[in-house]
Amino acid sequence: MMKELKAYIRISKIEAVIHALKAAGAANMSIIHVQAVGGEMDAKDFKLSLELVSKYSEVVKLELVCSDADAPKYVEAIRKSAYTSRPGDGIIFVTNVEDAVKIRTSECGEEALV
Amino acid sequence: MMKELKAYIRISKIEAVIHALKAAGAANMSIIHVQAVGGEMDAKDFKLSLELVSKYSEVVKLELVCSDADAPKYVEAIRKSAYTSRPGDGIIFVTNVEDAVKIRTSECGEEALV
Amino acid sequence: MMKELKAYIRISKIEAVIHALKAAGAANMSIIHVQAVGGEMDAKDFKLSLELVSKYSEVVKLELVCSDADAPKYVEAIRKSAYTSRPGDGIIFVTNVEDAVKIRTSECGEEALV
Repeated sequence: MMKELKAYIRISKIEAVIHALKAAGAANMSIIHVQAVGGEMDAKDFKLSLELVSKYSEVVKLELVCSDADAPKYVEAIRKSAYTSRPGDGIIFVTNVEDAVKIRTSECGEEALV
Repeated sequence: MMKELKAYIRISKIEAVIHALKAAGAANMSIIHVQAVGGEMDAKDFKLSLELVSKYSEVVKLELVCSDADAPKYVEAIRKSAYTSRPGDGIIFVTNVEDAVKIRTSECGEEALV
Repeated sequence: MMKELKAYIRISKIEAVIHALKAAGAANMSIIHVQAVGGEMDAKDFKLSLELVSKYSEVVKLELVCSDADAPKYVEAIRKSAYTSRPGDGIIFVTNVEDAVKIRTSECGEEALV
């Protein structure tokens, strides 16, 4: 079995988190900017949006799929490298992944991840 | 256990949906613009893309993680506030979340959500 | 039960993948551009980012929810249509979806997908 980690982190921490994940052995991840609404925010990060009519902050969502065995060390790598102690450090979610298929090789499951 | 709600809704309904979710007690959500291809579309919303060579509409994907107990009321809050009766109102998906880790406090599970 | 397919594919293959999925019967999908970091990359695709301080490539994440029964044929449609044989063709992940609610009709489960 495999796990997907989805981490919502500060934009200023992307570089540190990627570095920590690579050092821990992670091979593949993807990154996208999203708007976080509600919840804890760093006072100096939040913005006002006419569209959302709400305070929001720009954060990065990092997605990573790994083996069940590797999940705890990657969660810890993200947690430590994304930490500042201030509100708005973000959160990591862990979900199950049923299968993976690598397009170039047709490898399935954990073999698709390397 | 926790649930992730992913709602694909009209851009014009974001404000109403965020308001309804906050009124129902939701603390954290994230928002991103995506391109919806195929399926029901409001005739006045669709666009043509050279890249997609397909009709698409710009919609918002709203993501929210909550306790199992809270999921039904948030699904209902989204459904009611995103409704217009016209094709293209969108859809809500519910998936399981195995764990959550709050970066600032290291709290896990449902305690990480507050 | 339903499945969510998440495919990370080359931007140049979006049109072919959408066409293949529609030909296989898929009704709804969504598309978003993301940055892929690490892993296999086509040498001519990668870019350097000051923000990421890392090589990355721009890829498309395609998301599609379907019945369990339809999942294998859609995975195969994506795999074949996204294939070039060069590194960087991408990967498909399969996860479980617990429920779906169509906003306009309140239909649930697989009936919400049509």
